[in-house]
Amino acid sequence: MNIPTKLNVQDPVEDQDQSDPAKKGWMVGCPPPADKLIKFIPADNKFPKMRWSLANIRQLVPTAQISRGPGPISNLPTRYHDISNVTWVDAEGKTKTFMDMMNLTYTDGLMVLHKGNVIYEKYFGVMNPTKPHLAMSVTKSFVGTLGAILVHEKLIDDTKPVIHYVPELAKTAYGDATVRQVLDMTISVKYSEDYTDPNAEVWNYSQSAGSMPRFEDYHGPQTLYEFLLTLEKDKEHQHDERFWYKTVNTEILAWIIRRVTGKPLAIYLSERIWQRMGAADDAYFMVDSIGTESAGGGYNTCLHDLARFGEVMRNRGYFNGQQVIPSEVIDDIKRGGDKAKFAPAGYETLKGWSYRNMWWVGQDAVGEFEARGIHGQRIHINSKAEMTIVRYASHPHASNIINDPPTQAAYRALAQYLENLK
Amino acid sequence: MNIPTKLNVQDPVEDQDQSDPAKKGWMVGCPPPADKLIKFIPADNKFPKMRWSLANIRQLVPTAQISRGPGPISNLPTRYHDISNVTWVDAEGKTKTFMDMMNLTYTDGLMVLHKGNVIYEKYFGVMNPTKPHLAMSVTKSFVGTLGAILVHEKLIDDTKPVIHYVPELAKTAYGDATVRQVLDMTISVKYSEDYTDPNAEVWNYSQSAGSMPRFEDYHGPQTLYEFLLTLEKDKEHQHDERFWYKTVNTEILAWIIRRVTGKPLAIYLSERIWQRMGAADDAYFMVDSIGTESAGGGYNTCLHDLARFGEVMRNRGYFNGQQVIPSEVIDDIKRGGDKAKFAPAGYETLKGWSYRNMWWVGQDAVGEFEARGIHGQRIHINSKAEMTIVRYASHPHASNIINDPPTQAAYRALAQYLENLK
Repeated sequence: MNIPTKLNVQDPVEDQDQSDPAKKGWMVGCPPPADKLIKFIPADNKFPKMRWSLANIRQLVPTAQISRGPGPISNLPTRYHDISNVTWVDAEGKTKTFMDMMNLTYTDGLMVLHKGNVIYEKYFGVMNPTKPHLAMSVTKSFVGTLGAILVHEKLIDDTKPVIHYVPELAKTAYGDATVRQVLDMTISVKYSEDYTDPNAEVWNYSQSAGSMPRFEDYHGPQTLYEFLLTLEKDKEHQHDERFWYKTVNTEILAWIIRRVTGKPLAIYLSERIWQRMGAADDAYFMVDSIGTESAGGGYNTCLHDLARFGEVMRNRGYFNGQQVIPSEVIDDIKRGGDKAKFAPAGYETLKGWSYRNMWWVGQDAVGEFEARGIHGQRIHINSKAEMTIVRYASHPHASNIINDPPTQAAYRALAQYLENLK
Repeated sequence: MNIPTKLNVQDPVEDQDQSDPAKKGWMVGCPPPADKLIKFIPADNKFPKMRWSLANIRQLVPTAQISRGPGPISNLPTRYHDISNVTWVDAEGKTKTFMDMMNLTYTDGLMVLHKGNVIYEKYFGVMNPTKPHLAMSVTKSFVGTLGAILVHEKLIDDTKPVIHYVPELAKTAYGDATVRQVLDMTISVKYSEDYTDPNAEVWNYSQSAGSMPRFEDYHGPQTLYEFLLTLEKDKEHQHDERFWYKTVNTEILAWIIRRVTGKPLAIYLSERIWQRMGAADDAYFMVDSIGTESAGGGYNTCLHDLARFGEVMRNRGYFNGQQVIPSEVIDDIKRGGDKAKFAPAGYETLKGWSYRNMWWVGQDAVGEFEARGIHGQRIHINSKAEMTIVRYASHPHASNIINDPPTQAAYRALAQYLENLK
């Protein structure tokens, strides 16, 4: 989570329509009036302004290009079918529509693919088909996939210690960890994302990485690398005891990937995935003051390219006429991680799930797995229904408990609906 | 000129090969070693680090996307022909090659088109076909073209006062100027780009626009709009007396364009030119702290899209199967401006030239016109030879006197060579 909103779930907030960033007129005018300005300052870093910012991050901070390369754009066939009225039933027994779900989850853009065809595509607010949106923690699944590819190609040995690749980390929490523990986030590290705690490590993380505007009195680490060197072990726990979801693990993985490939993450991701899958548009990473990509949450893509990546994953790596990612890598992700280690994390909406190579792996029976961002950004794959749903969103509450119930009910209802189509 | 180098032309500097930013290893490593870092700070804002920065501006500052849109990429046919050994004769009578010219001018990328085919394409240093480069004042010709289109479409009346469109400028140098005077830069305005003068207006311009890193003691205007409101008339002159090349005129034109179209410059340029010509890649503008594009020098494009735009201009606006720009707009530019008003500017290498709609118009006999950036960035069109040359470069000296002689001699020799081909 890069841009904290510090809202309590009880806070009354404007709904999808009331908070529509296009209707708000943010940043419209030459110059925009003072009350319509959004700057990269702490005061502007919250809902509802966030709804504009998540689709315009590059106007606020330095970024690195993920080039689509010189090749042709891959085909993403369309067979439109209006599914906005497909119904689902909420926790109170009320019948709602797929459109209701999109509104409840503050959707900025959503695309449904069935059997490889785009059947539904809808944009809200300031989003459009060629405008990138911040993926936040969906980023982690891209980086985890790159890590898993390198493990598969034996360029990384996941049984080796992290410090085999990045000796600089010897005195940190990662000094006695393995790469596999990083990939599956079973690392014991003192890293809190509790924004109500002024001493939480997330403050230094976000301000050093440049993903959060710096407060005037900020005197912490100046770069992401400097910050990573400050990470200490949580003395009450050993690695591998259980799953702890910590953004910094993805930053450590990115460091390993850069060291092994000798390339910036932006270049390696472009060459290894973006170009091969025939992305239609460049993507971009937020970067810190020395060009280091925010691997834990700083990736921005257009919605249709997120859909292409979802289809790469759903099709066991085969897309655009080639094996973009080895099928074994996807199979390994889909098998999931250790459920016994995942359970203690206590995710009420993800019972029976697990975490593997920075993907969230759900119901085995339907081959369900997800990349998940904290404001509702999501790649959702239901293998059995041959369905991929990608969503960019800017929900005011950074909360699974609020976001998951309508999302899960609507997605599963849609899967059922699609399976029943002749 | 956005990034001053403050070199004297007599200063000894590293040559093209010695200053190659790839060989220098700038920003390589995780993290890069301290002596290889390039940050957006005054100390790093100079040659030879500039050779890396001009191809990586988005990693240093906030930017706005110019989308290529959802359409197909236009065809840019290739018929490669090695012209690197075509010869020209320098001022001392020595015979040199086209490759010598590229080295002498610190070329980062160069493409030659003849009769619509790409016949030559070469990249140096950290450039490659899908990496944008800062166009600097070539930007002005894009903005001037947009202005001329709006005049042609009667959405702007160029005989009207500037304040008809932007009343906010009433108390500035532009209070009694017409739009035409802005388009042809015959404005009397107190605006100096003499970097040796600490009171030169360029310091506030560049720091308010965010195109130059701010010095710690900067207390000038915070945004580009705030800066433009400070511009005073040069009391010794009236508008229209002669041509004065002043970057701020393009910023004023951009303000008019935004006001008339109701759109950010980045959006209007995307819709009106970039999408219609079938650009292969997004381009981008540097922006200030409130998202205002640097219209005087902040545009960045890939080389092949600069070539596409050059071909649009050479073909009287027709490209990609459509009339991208009305032919009358191009004809007006090619007819040039008032040579009598251009002459007093005293450009030794541009005798007999003129300036029209922010294009430099050269030898009538061959239909020569150019977009020119101060470090050697250039779109060069020779209508008679059916030749378009686009070049990105990072010459240490911001000087026509140094850059023009080899460029002009080599380009004219190449035109002759191509005309002699059967």
